[in-house]
Amino acid sequence: MQTLIWKTLSPAQQADVLTRPALSDEADIGAVVREIIAAVRSRGDEALRELSQRFERVPRQQLQVSDAEIEAACARLGDDIKGAIEAAIANIRSFHAAQVQPVVRVETQPGVVCELRTQPISRVGLYVPGGSAPLPSTVMMLAIPAAIAGCREVVLCTPSPASDEILFAARACGVEKVFAIGGAQAIAAMAYGTQSIPKVDKIFGPGNAYVTEAKGQVSRDWRGAAIDMPAGPSEVLVIADESANPAFVAADLLSQAEHGPDSQVVLVTTSPLLADAINGEIKRQLAKLTRRDIAAQALGSSLVILCDDLAEACAISNAYAPEHLIVQTRAPRDLLDQLENAGSIFLGAWTPESVGDYASGTNHTLPTYGYARTCSSLGLADYQRRYTVQELSERGIQGLGPIVERIAQAEGLDGHKNAVTLRLNALAAAPQQTAQQKDLS
Amino acid sequence: MQTLIWKTLSPAQQADVLTRPALSDEADIGAVVREIIAAVRSRGDEALRELSQRFERVPRQQLQVSDAEIEAACARLGDDIKGAIEAAIANIRSFHAAQVQPVVRVETQPGVVCELRTQPISRVGLYVPGGSAPLPSTVMMLAIPAAIAGCREVVLCTPSPASDEILFAARACGVEKVFAIGGAQAIAAMAYGTQSIPKVDKIFGPGNAYVTEAKGQVSRDWRGAAIDMPAGPSEVLVIADESANPAFVAADLLSQAEHGPDSQVVLVTTSPLLADAINGEIKRQLAKLTRRDIAAQALGSSLVILCDDLAEACAISNAYAPEHLIVQTRAPRDLLDQLENAGSIFLGAWTPESVGDYASGTNHTLPTYGYARTCSSLGLADYQRRYTVQELSERGIQGLGPIVERIAQAEGLDGHKNAVTLRLNALAAAPQQTAQQKDLS
Repeated sequence: MQTLIWKTLSPAQQADVLTRPALSDEADIGAVVREIIAAVRSRGDEALRELSQRFERVPRQQLQVSDAEIEAACARLGDDIKGAIEAAIANIRSFHAAQVQPVVRVETQPGVVCELRTQPISRVGLYVPGGSAPLPSTVMMLAIPAAIAGCREVVLCTPSPASDEILFAARACGVEKVFAIGGAQAIAAMAYGTQSIPKVDKIFGPGNAYVTEAKGQVSRDWRGAAIDMPAGPSEVLVIADESANPAFVAADLLSQAEHGPDSQVVLVTTSPLLADAINGEIKRQLAKLTRRDIAAQALGSSLVILCDDLAEACAISNAYAPEHLIVQTRAPRDLLDQLENAGSIFLGAWTPESVGDYASGTNHTLPTYGYARTCSSLGLADYQRRYTVQELSERGIQGLGPIVERIAQAEGLDGHKNAVTLRLNALAAAPQQTAQQKDLS
Repeated sequence: MQTLIWKTLSPAQQADVLTRPALSDEADIGAVVREIIAAVRSRGDEALRELSQRFERVPRQQLQVSDAEIEAACARLGDDIKGAIEAAIANIRSFHAAQVQPVVRVETQPGVVCELRTQPISRVGLYVPGGSAPLPSTVMMLAIPAAIAGCREVVLCTPSPASDEILFAARACGVEKVFAIGGAQAIAAMAYGTQSIPKVDKIFGPGNAYVTEAKGQVSRDWRGAAIDMPAGPSEVLVIADESANPAFVAADLLSQAEHGPDSQVVLVTTSPLLADAINGEIKRQLAKLTRRDIAAQALGSSLVILCDDLAEACAISNAYAPEHLIVQTRAPRDLLDQLENAGSIFLGAWTPESVGDYASGTNHTLPTYGYARTCSSLGLADYQRRYTVQELSERGIQGLGPIVERIAQAEGLDGHKNAVTLRLNALAAAPQQTAQQKDLS
């Protein structure tokens, strides 16, 4: 890990240090994905079956995973992993259920009632990557808020073969339709619909460069589907003072580094001694990891930043805007008011990132690559639409009407004004109606 | 207005009727905008001044509108329009202030505390179009939630000359920096920053095709800025039964039609008699409007759909997903549970769309072009980021740790597992620490 002393850097160097590396922009991915999407749109399931033959480890004719297959998968799994997944589901469910918002109702002036309401997005599609390891945690993080929101249709796509853990988690989270198809073609199928895969309104979930590109393309087409958030490599920033346990911090940095060679790992500390100790711990722990080659690559471009005090550490973190922020200091909660732009914050020695990745209850789908400045941690709200309702009584339009007329006139929109004037005239002409006036409340 | 009888149409025809016309996709707009953005990024204010000379009605050297200019504008305005703007601001403020969310805090299992918190997005940019009519209402709708959220920096750009109404509204809503520059160059300036215009994190507001294209381009660049929502032509759908007042409905349809020739206007009614009466009223009212040529163009492609009952009317509206939905029926609130996918709903005879456009308190920035299926009415939440915090006590990690270890193992991520195992081992080795255990609460 490269070590830098923050105050010795110029402002331009500081900005440079915190700038993420450009993502490799492979021009041909766009074209390949465009072709895949066009094929799925024009030939539906037939195209999906052909693509399954070409790309899936276990190609399928029947894209939907049957109930019998799901039941067999559940029967094969051990009780310990089932119990762990169920315990995680319970925590994630209770945290996301607490995010339900009541209707906001305000009578802004007499007889003028405004409401902010939420509704589930009708049809959502979840993408769960396959690859080297099955990711049942992604199923939980994407499917539980969909169930709590009450989305009418929840579709899940994952490369074939779908792992037993993924199928068990999907069943446990109430996903009704699982399709064993991955890649850009799965995104295209959910965005536009095919004979067997229903069209959805919004697509959630991580994936490789092809999946990410496909999500981008379908989200820019109004006939396609909305998406959860922009994608980028996973990242962690740890703020640690001299009280931190170097073995714990090293383990946290490594658990980020093992995600992929492009994982971003940053340590910001007030203690050069701690930094040295962490470096030693990393060497020791790294040797024992299965994914040590991946982790070592990520660590090659990782950073240790030495700073003067915790206020400076917070400012550095705020400028970087990390996906995950771990705070291992004497009084971590005291820093909360100074911390901005982090996707999820882990406070104290007993809160490693892995608890949030799996089971504490928070969502592990988080904005990365600096998007934490404007994007939110995935939550119930992402499965809902907020809309407003307004209702005026006769008294309401009588009070508000003249204000609307005056502004409409200033904007030169006399049709807008006329819609009010007509009503005020009707009320003035028929005072008996005003007598029957019932205010809304 | 073209009249259709819903039940005589095939499902394919029905879907076709509700499909919006394709937006004219002028290929050269993309290239022109790319050039403007590149110029602003490389030459900053110098490029803005050149573009001001080329495009603004009143070109400026000094881009920022000075305090003296704003004060002079406020002094020129009459008390009646000032009073109307202030009354609208009060309503919009009270409805948006009610959207503040408390921290969600859940102890998901003993010693495992999860929180969902919100924070303002630090720096926001507001774009207010100029053109034929000044739009003080856009200033209010964009700036009031920014002030309530507590965004640290609020920048507003509007074409030169900025109207007195816009400057007054900006001052009244607490906008500190106003720049008299419009178009794609204003979006580029806010997304990347120049010598005089600060870089922002997120850009809000409507605009012409160049502004829309610029918002799209900067939002796809991670060094650029996020944006509020996709843009499209404004639209209204009215559900009316035989109890509706034809003059009111006609006025509401016309107030939508006068927005622009591409405005979408749809009437869904159970009553052919009402439809006839509304057609007559439209002819009478249209003749008196200043913007009758625009409105007549929009009405040329508008639709009247005759349906059997209100349940069918709701289904049609849900399939169309209108930006504005006006319900003029005997018991409009009774339909609320059946209505989906509308940006803002206006209930009853006394609630024309114009009240929401200006002053009822709801936001007039709404998803259009079918995006209401997944996008929300603009609100306080769009100026905030939601993030999570978690904190485990020793007891917390002892209870949750084994669950996390088991799932990490299933996913083949032993670095994730190790970050927990180390901590469990430390606690097992030092039971005296466990004795000092303080649970978080």
